[in-house]
Amino acid sequence: MSVETVMKAAILGASGYTGAETVRLLAAHPHVEAVAATGNALSGKALSEIFPHLAGPSDLPVVKSDDVDWSGIDVAFSCLPHGTSQDLIETLPEHIRVIDLSADYRFRDAKTYFSTYGRHHLTPDKLRKSVYGLPEWCGKAARNARLIACPGCYPTATLLALLPLVEKIELDHLIVDAKSGVSGAGRGLKEGNLFSETAEGVHAYAVGTHRHVPEIEQELNLAAGRDDIGVTFTPHLIPMTRGELVTCHVRGDVDQIHAALTTRYGDAPFVHVLPLGAPPPDTRHVRGTNTCRIAVYPDRVKGRVVVIAVIDNLIKGSSGQAIQNLNLMMGWEETTGLSGLQALFP
Amino acid sequence: MSVETVMKAAILGASGYTGAETVRLLAAHPHVEAVAATGNALSGKALSEIFPHLAGPSDLPVVKSDDVDWSGIDVAFSCLPHGTSQDLIETLPEHIRVIDLSADYRFRDAKTYFSTYGRHHLTPDKLRKSVYGLPEWCGKAARNARLIACPGCYPTATLLALLPLVEKIELDHLIVDAKSGVSGAGRGLKEGNLFSETAEGVHAYAVGTHRHVPEIEQELNLAAGRDDIGVTFTPHLIPMTRGELVTCHVRGDVDQIHAALTTRYGDAPFVHVLPLGAPPPDTRHVRGTNTCRIAVYPDRVKGRVVVIAVIDNLIKGSSGQAIQNLNLMMGWEETTGLSGLQALFP
Amino acid sequence: MSVETVMKAAILGASGYTGAETVRLLAAHPHVEAVAATGNALSGKALSEIFPHLAGPSDLPVVKSDDVDWSGIDVAFSCLPHGTSQDLIETLPEHIRVIDLSADYRFRDAKTYFSTYGRHHLTPDKLRKSVYGLPEWCGKAARNARLIACPGCYPTATLLALLPLVEKIELDHLIVDAKSGVSGAGRGLKEGNLFSETAEGVHAYAVGTHRHVPEIEQELNLAAGRDDIGVTFTPHLIPMTRGELVTCHVRGDVDQIHAALTTRYGDAPFVHVLPLGAPPPDTRHVRGTNTCRIAVYPDRVKGRVVVIAVIDNLIKGSSGQAIQNLNLMMGWEETTGLSGLQALFP
Amino acid sequence: MSVETVMKAAILGASGYTGAETVRLLAAHPHVEAVAATGNALSGKALSEIFPHLAGPSDLPVVKSDDVDWSGIDVAFSCLPHGTSQDLIETLPEHIRVIDLSADYRFRDAKTYFSTYGRHHLTPDKLRKSVYGLPEWCGKAARNARLIACPGCYPTATLLALLPLVEKIELDHLIVDAKSGVSGAGRGLKEGNLFSETAEGVHAYAVGTHRHVPEIEQELNLAAGRDDIGVTFTPHLIPMTRGELVTCHVRGDVDQIHAALTTRYGDAPFVHVLPLGAPPPDTRHVRGTNTCRIAVYPDRVKGRVVVIAVIDNLIKGSSGQAIQNLNLMMGWEETTGLSGLQALFP
Repeated sequence: MSVETVMKAAILGASGYTGAETVRLLAAHPHVEAVAATGNALSGKALSEIFPHLAGPSDLPVVKSDDVDWSGIDVAFSCLPHGTSQDLIETLPEHIRVIDLSADYRFRDAKTYFSTYGRHHLTPDKLRKSVYGLPEWCGKAARNARLIACPGCYPTATLLALLPLVEKIELDHLIVDAKSGVSGAGRGLKEGNLFSETAEGVHAYAVGTHRHVPEIEQELNLAAGRDDIGVTFTPHLIPMTRGELVTCHVRGDVDQIHAALTTRYGDAPFVHVLPLGAPPPDTRHVRGTNTCRIAVYPDRVKGRVVVIAVIDNLIKGSSGQAIQNLNLMMGWEETTGLSGLQALFP
Repeated sequence: MSVETVMKAAILGASGYTGAETVRLLAAHPHVEAVAATGNALSGKALSEIFPHLAGPSDLPVVKSDDVDWSGIDVAFSCLPHGTSQDLIETLPEHIRVIDLSADYRFRDAKTYFSTYGRHHLTPDKLRKSVYGLPEWCGKAARNARLIACPGCYPTATLLALLPLVEKIELDHLIVDAKSGVSGAGRGLKEGNLFSETAEGVHAYAVGTHRHVPEIEQELNLAAGRDDIGVTFTPHLIPMTRGELVTCHVRGDVDQIHAALTTRYGDAPFVHVLPLGAPPPDTRHVRGTNTCRIAVYPDRVKGRVVVIAVIDNLIKGSSGQAIQNLNLMMGWEETTGLSGLQALFP
Repeated sequence: MSVETVMKAAILGASGYTGAETVRLLAAHPHVEAVAATGNALSGKALSEIFPHLAGPSDLPVVKSDDVDWSGIDVAFSCLPHGTSQDLIETLPEHIRVIDLSADYRFRDAKTYFSTYGRHHLTPDKLRKSVYGLPEWCGKAARNARLIACPGCYPTATLLALLPLVEKIELDHLIVDAKSGVSGAGRGLKEGNLFSETAEGVHAYAVGTHRHVPEIEQELNLAAGRDDIGVTFTPHLIPMTRGELVTCHVRGDVDQIHAALTTRYGDAPFVHVLPLGAPPPDTRHVRGTNTCRIAVYPDRVKGRVVVIAVIDNLIKGSSGQAIQNLNLMMGWEETTGLSGLQALFP
Repeated sequence: MSVETVMKAAILGASGYTGAETVRLLAAHPHVEAVAATGNALSGKALSEIFPHLAGPSDLPVVKSDDVDWSGIDVAFSCLPHGTSQDLIETLPEHIRVIDLSADYRFRDAKTYFSTYGRHHLTPDKLRKSVYGLPEWCGKAARNARLIACPGCYPTATLLALLPLVEKIELDHLIVDAKSGVSGAGRGLKEGNLFSETAEGVHAYAVGTHRHVPEIEQELNLAAGRDDIGVTFTPHLIPMTRGELVTCHVRGDVDQIHAALTTRYGDAPFVHVLPLGAPPPDTRHVRGTNTCRIAVYPDRVKGRVVVIAVIDNLIKGSSGQAIQNLNLMMGWEETTGLSGLQALFP
């Protein structure tokens, strides 16, 4: 497929936030056209009825997945929940490339998938071959892959901050305190996502049990050639819609840590390492973009260092990264369709 | 002074949030009457012009501190900034009891005060005698004290969580990740407190350098009989007005830690330790109250434990605790004037 | 029943916001004790499991309404949705006083109830006898009533502002533009109440069709001795949890209007008319209280006047007013159990 | 100047929100390059120090206006406060085109400017010639203008909604109830813009006295060929950063009104009139865009109609509209540099 050809894309599960965001971002992509949006519960509606802000970018109807003519689809972005995602992906014709935003193909090991998500994987063999699509790290493996599994939003920010440091920090002392906006919880209807119970306060959740931790540990262990790295990960729900910040408490030398990050990401278009001494990065400064900002601070306690990373959870943590992965898969410029995104501040 | 007598109180620096909150709370105190409110910049106005919500509880005028007739004052609550606070406190007649909400008398050592606040203390000798007014810990020392120094908001939550644990946790591995609402920054006019730059995002600040850390370390070292405990403390600004949450990452045994907390605070009217397995405490559940809620969670990584404490920074972290301290000082029931406070949820 | 006796109260529908708020407020009432909380879907849980902030004020279990021993109940606060409310109220023994917070007994005319709520009333005859419980207006009628129907939150603020003006303003030009916090929509699970779709924006809803309008018109017509007053009422959803503000655009003389309000509410403990020229009233200044603040402003256009009223929708607009109504019903001091409420600002 | 040539732009007053937003948006404009940013108080800093989110789009230094080499500037966007704006604009060389975002050249009459802004205009004669830059209305007049005065944010939304209706509605009954996010108040440091005093509540301001009203009345009178139309305009501050909604209460026929709007804006790329019966427009649906959405609703009261318009106050209400005006001035496609903007939802 030449660059001039436009790929036809289907968005699976378009009635959630990541689905809508993928549709929105694809409208600016020169080589991809969203031609199908699935959503079984809301099928029959126009996508712009569900998400009026899409009235400009998209007038797609939402259809049942059974009603899609898959022969005309070149790539599928799956924005479905885990489980549901593999159920549909496994039925797709082989010619369709898949960018999966769910957790279904992130683990290299079916046992971890089972212990984390409580479900046996349909195709455990595929897991070993799947590409874990953190674009700044999977690089060549993504090229021509048939399926790329996009990392979770927390692993994205955490791994971008920690992967370059595996030789610089003490891997037995990793503590990550994370903060996420409410859109990270998706569009599901539960009391804990209501404005009245989410605004004007803060609380931790899934303390010691969050499903993104095995994913973080898997990649750190792979990078370090170990199998026993454990990460303390404590997420908090913040009264904001978009944005994610991870505060990584590590042990090492602040200058070496900063140097490792700047070296690693010198050419990365979407990862900006702030200079030492810069004001702390703010989720507001990356809102609406595919950018991750990382900064490094010495602690008062000698030998301890704080590494902070911020992303927009719906873009770099999800739909934007998915498109970045497609760019890598197709051999396009990594920033295609994403370079026009600017942070919306204030 | 018998319980029946009503103490006459002056609020120094009444035009800030903690000053206003002290006035508001005192309106419900049966043994204290606020009779003077000072504020040099806004003197001449009624307090209810500055804070219309006080129109009911208080019709005090704001006056310059020079214009107060101190002979009629029994107790002064100083809600002034550090430095300014001691400048005024040191001029007060000896018969006036002082509850200082500033940082000026919190340190036992003038050197730490200087290195932390960049100013030589006016009366370094007093520091050794001052009472650090964390009510659940200073107990008898507060009785009949002339001056009580109220802890900062972050030290209040952090120390309530950690002080009972000094024999149960590894004191060389203390990491506290803190989250505060914007009212913690006071009423000062700076860009960083504007709605447009504070809403819809999150960021860390004062990473590795926050002034409350030496205070936390002082008390932990005193409790442990050491002088070298260091705490990694990373505060974050949360887009909410009131509320503070500290996430303490410690090492120890989860059951021992929980037992130490429940034992220590079994009789404490304002500290509630949640049962093991309870949902994480939420600042919304203590908003408007003088209560601290503490909960304990095992981490996935063996031997690591997460202790979370939440308070209302303007009440338990400030004005409410100040009144609790006055109650102790005067030998009144600890809950006097504070027992009617209920959490405002949603 | 003497004042000393404590009435036993049941809260029907305690698992919603107004139910929880009623339980919370009753904890401070000297003559009432909440002894039963019903909620069919969540029965079996403790109320403090559903609403952890109530752990202090209440350890009531939630039970099915069928499981309540009604013989021991003196008064029932119905916080159920309309329809469900009358279904249960009509089964209660006659000795039980009822304070109904739903819409079921607000209309004097069963036809209006049907056209507004799409349901035939079970006991249309009762409607003519029911007391419309706007406490500042129903006064003596409430004394010894068996059932009081509390007004909706919008009618409460709107009628408090407009009822004193029926002889001072042109009743054919009434336009009310209303703003409400999200808690006004209750705890129902729908996309429109999610944080991510409610924060950071504003929109109108139910334009020209809100169910509270017939209620407003009913009372204005009754007060004016007319039957044809129509009110343009446009509500907006504001990204805040509590608070309600109505902006009433009227025609008349600003001084006469202000005088009518101050005269009417001179003795009302919960309605404060601000002096002419005062800064506009703010929902923040009544948050957490049973108070309505009203202010009057001349417009640039001669003969037009803006009357603004603010309340806390969950207290004066709901649970607080319900208790105020019980006080009137029982002949207690109107402020009983409510006088300790203070505005939580900031 | 051909389309291929890139105009050199100076942004005057770049340290405020509209200045920063203009810089950000210009980064996507193919025919304009921002080459100078002035800001006297913050000169010497990089713009990206003041606004870290601009680090990508712009590395301009902020300089004093005296230090700009005006000979190299083709167009100046003035984002200065009124008064200050004309002081600088009047000193600029004649070859520089000016897009003024302040109020200084909006009035056709110096008397109105004086009565509204309390200052005598420096060049009253210019006012009669200045173009009031509501792009959908000034059309040809903008072509080749030397100076365009951009409307205020409230007049933008209000006039887009009402100007097409001057022959369809009763012009003596115009009531506009407006709601704005806090960024509309700019970056000025005052208590009323602090998060703690702006979040979690709502209030009206400048009731009957807002400075944007004479501007609205001027344009309506001009359009209607009258001089006595008065508008009741009541703005409210909403706890959100961006967004503005005007609720216009008018009298007329709902179908005629809707038809007049759809006809007038059928070809307007940035004004979308929703179909009758559509859900109310939401500021969230235009956040981040240069789009105005307008909807029309019948009221319950016969003959009354509610017209609602929403914009992003910093884009269509300010910087985006300024660029749209430059496009018209230069004869470029109206959407140049603005067509890529998409609403950020959620």
